[in-house]
Amino acid sequence: MIKVTVWNENLHEKESQEVRTVYPDGIHGCIAGFLKDDPEIVVRTATLDMPEHGLTKEVIDDTDVLIWWGHMGHHLVSDEIVERVYEAVLKGMGLIVLHSGHKSKILMKLMGTTCDLKWRDGDRERVWTVLPGHPIAKGVPEHFELNVEEMYGEPFLVPNPDEVVFMGWFRGGEVFRSGLCYRRGLGRIFYFQPGHETNPTYHNPWVRLIIRNAVHWAEPVKRISELGCPNPASLEGLE
Amino acid sequence: MIKVTVWNENLHEKESQEVRTVYPDGIHGCIAGFLKDDPEIVVRTATLDMPEHGLTKEVIDDTDVLIWWGHMGHHLVSDEIVERVYEAVLKGMGLIVLHSGHKSKILMKLMGTTCDLKWRDGDRERVWTVLPGHPIAKGVPEHFELNVEEMYGEPFLVPNPDEVVFMGWFRGGEVFRSGLCYRRGLGRIFYFQPGHETNPTYHNPWVRLIIRNAVHWAEPVKRISELGCPNPASLEGLE
Amino acid sequence: MIKVTVWNENLHEKESQEVRTVYPDGIHGCIAGFLKDDPEIVVRTATLDMPEHGLTKEVIDDTDVLIWWGHMGHHLVSDEIVERVYEAVLKGMGLIVLHSGHKSKILMKLMGTTCDLKWRDGDRERVWTVLPGHPIAKGVPEHFELNVEEMYGEPFLVPNPDEVVFMGWFRGGEVFRSGLCYRRGLGRIFYFQPGHETNPTYHNPWVRLIIRNAVHWAEPVKRISELGCPNPASLEGLE
Amino acid sequence: MIKVTVWNENLHEKESQEVRTVYPDGIHGCIAGFLKDDPEIVVRTATLDMPEHGLTKEVIDDTDVLIWWGHMGHHLVSDEIVERVYEAVLKGMGLIVLHSGHKSKILMKLMGTTCDLKWRDGDRERVWTVLPGHPIAKGVPEHFELNVEEMYGEPFLVPNPDEVVFMGWFRGGEVFRSGLCYRRGLGRIFYFQPGHETNPTYHNPWVRLIIRNAVHWAEPVKRISELGCPNPASLEGLE
Repeated sequence: MIKVTVWNENLHEKESQEVRTVYPDGIHGCIAGFLKDDPEIVVRTATLDMPEHGLTKEVIDDTDVLIWWGHMGHHLVSDEIVERVYEAVLKGMGLIVLHSGHKSKILMKLMGTTCDLKWRDGDRERVWTVLPGHPIAKGVPEHFELNVEEMYGEPFLVPNPDEVVFMGWFRGGEVFRSGLCYRRGLGRIFYFQPGHETNPTYHNPWVRLIIRNAVHWAEPVKRISELGCPNPASLEGLE
Repeated sequence: MIKVTVWNENLHEKESQEVRTVYPDGIHGCIAGFLKDDPEIVVRTATLDMPEHGLTKEVIDDTDVLIWWGHMGHHLVSDEIVERVYEAVLKGMGLIVLHSGHKSKILMKLMGTTCDLKWRDGDRERVWTVLPGHPIAKGVPEHFELNVEEMYGEPFLVPNPDEVVFMGWFRGGEVFRSGLCYRRGLGRIFYFQPGHETNPTYHNPWVRLIIRNAVHWAEPVKRISELGCPNPASLEGLE
Repeated sequence: MIKVTVWNENLHEKESQEVRTVYPDGIHGCIAGFLKDDPEIVVRTATLDMPEHGLTKEVIDDTDVLIWWGHMGHHLVSDEIVERVYEAVLKGMGLIVLHSGHKSKILMKLMGTTCDLKWRDGDRERVWTVLPGHPIAKGVPEHFELNVEEMYGEPFLVPNPDEVVFMGWFRGGEVFRSGLCYRRGLGRIFYFQPGHETNPTYHNPWVRLIIRNAVHWAEPVKRISELGCPNPASLEGLE
Repeated sequence: MIKVTVWNENLHEKESQEVRTVYPDGIHGCIAGFLKDDPEIVVRTATLDMPEHGLTKEVIDDTDVLIWWGHMGHHLVSDEIVERVYEAVLKGMGLIVLHSGHKSKILMKLMGTTCDLKWRDGDRERVWTVLPGHPIAKGVPEHFELNVEEMYGEPFLVPNPDEVVFMGWFRGGEVFRSGLCYRRGLGRIFYFQPGHETNPTYHNPWVRLIIRNAVHWAEPVKRISELGCPNPASLEGLE
């Protein structure tokens, strides 16, 4: 069983009837809902307003893959929790960052860049599968459309990805590396661009399949308990 | 001085008045022409119908960067010349492959894949600079348009590029990794997608700048004279 | 079930009593033997002297992961079979190339380089796990020793690997990138350096675990039936 | 002219006669000294005890490539200066981090990992050139020895490097990726492992050549003045 925690700042949902109409259970509730259909996944949710944002040491230690959705509340996430998630990723926990999470403290910290991009609300996107043999692309068609999605455009200020699985075409004339894989320490990270809060993106079957595939891909191979710089100084070396 | 050889199959030019109108001196003549404006570059041309396709051992040994344009005559290029170019790249010579050269014997051999892609003639392309800090992007704007260019679409069956410098957006709805960098042995390879024979692509100032930048980027750091698997068997090792 | 075919040229075994003593069932028999212990793997073997080297179309179509051991008989492998394996990898089949297989026609074709390296027989190697979070490193210790192994030394003339999982230290003073991952088309490729024919390397439990892990890692996500450059020319594009 | 600033915490030099004997002008003085021999380089130095650690906005704006040596004083570097250097790199400034700088705030921030490694003082190292065609390896032999150098061993907790130019062999039995290239934003980063404060490593001619080559490699292609997420919202897009 893969233990997934879906984290959402859950702020737009409180402020906007429009968002609540699309996601009556919140974005986290929607994502948790479709992941539950996978018999190999168990899922919990956590939100910004919970104690320690719902990401206590116990929750993180019990999480194989963390999914992150944030936007207007990035600055409200405490540095202590960011540090906790950061170390958990380096020790092996998987992390899936969605859409506006590109400017989350945790993604910027793990990327080592600002993750800046261009954006424009209310465009149409066609997602192209660039690496059809990748596990996250399993069962995903060569391309699919999102009738309304926020445009995110290049240049995207991230490190050279280990793998570019998806690329996005926007009607307004831009392109974007939409699905990116990274390894940091023992953990795997997947960034996926679609998912603006007012659009029904997380109801799209292909988006759901991609996130589900990403959970399986990001499952830890191994978790370690400590980071550090060991000095086997008392030894003469191995020889 | 960087010694450049521009190779062109020069077949469309012989068959088609349309192509001759766009490139009265051939595609090779056009490219050689604008490269000559760079005082650090000396340039010669070579074509399929010359003895040894104009790529004798002497020419290759005297070439720092080889530019390749081919399409309908890929199968007419002799395997012996392909092997000569292949070894020269591994020993340090730079190689720039343009447009339909994606299916040339030499690129497929160096990539280890078929370099298949989707295509459709007569679209409009917008080229995006994804890595603005890359030497090949020096002076190139964030994006520029080619009013008529052949669509090349993903998935592009090539190895994971060392660097994706440019990406293409097509009016018809596709995306493409349009400017790709590879290192093979001591040589550097740049593949650049624009340049259909009936379109005035090589008259575009940004395309010209990109090819010129690529020549500088692909200049050999070092040339070696031999490949091989040395066996320092008579030694006890270095220790 | 993962269907594995272990291919071996099986020439040293015929010529040398020393090799037969280490591998009485041949290197292929030894590898097939320990893979059979994995309940998720079914395994067959194939050798150079069989019709079509044992790699008929039917066998390749029925193979998920092909393991390759060759050395003195590289030139005896027919180009037709190499082409068959090459296309199968691009269409999704996994490939694991062992030790002296670095100079096999199939690896050189898929890498696009000569795969040259330095070598010296009869050294001691310590294999280091560089990426402990990688699936192929699952359960493998931080380092382990091979008391007698052939030294393979840098520079190793291969493309920049997608992932370097293991590195080798040699008593004689050399280093080597010993475990390398590549993706070519839809297929995954793992190259692993240890395994000289006169050494009991494939009896080492860590080497066995690494090969077993690599089989699971290289299992196809998807197999396609055709390669090619589709031209949806009759369409106006997707827009 | 390439404007280089050599930064050194300059703490060991104050505390230890042993270090002063090896580096009477400080490590920064030694490095600045040999870089001055390059007619294309102008060099200044800066140290921890200077106002703003010598890295004022004016200095950073006037620096093309920053060289960083730190060890016992990593925690004494102010976060404000780290942020200034970080942004300068993303905007195009080159950065060369030496030896124990692997645990500097600036490298950890740009890598997005802890940069942990193994270490043991007082070993012998042989540096191998893995990418002989790389600009940083220009003129560097296939391998060279450092009779006394601190062992740094794998696993090295850094992101997958864009390029591994050098690898280190240690007499005590370890290996290390010793020369690593990264691109972050518009800036280039080179990490180079040799250089313990009590060893005469920066007097070694090959080490000097490598650092000099790295300065040329890291020279900015372009500097931008602003980072950010532009919203061309008033536009209908480019189409």
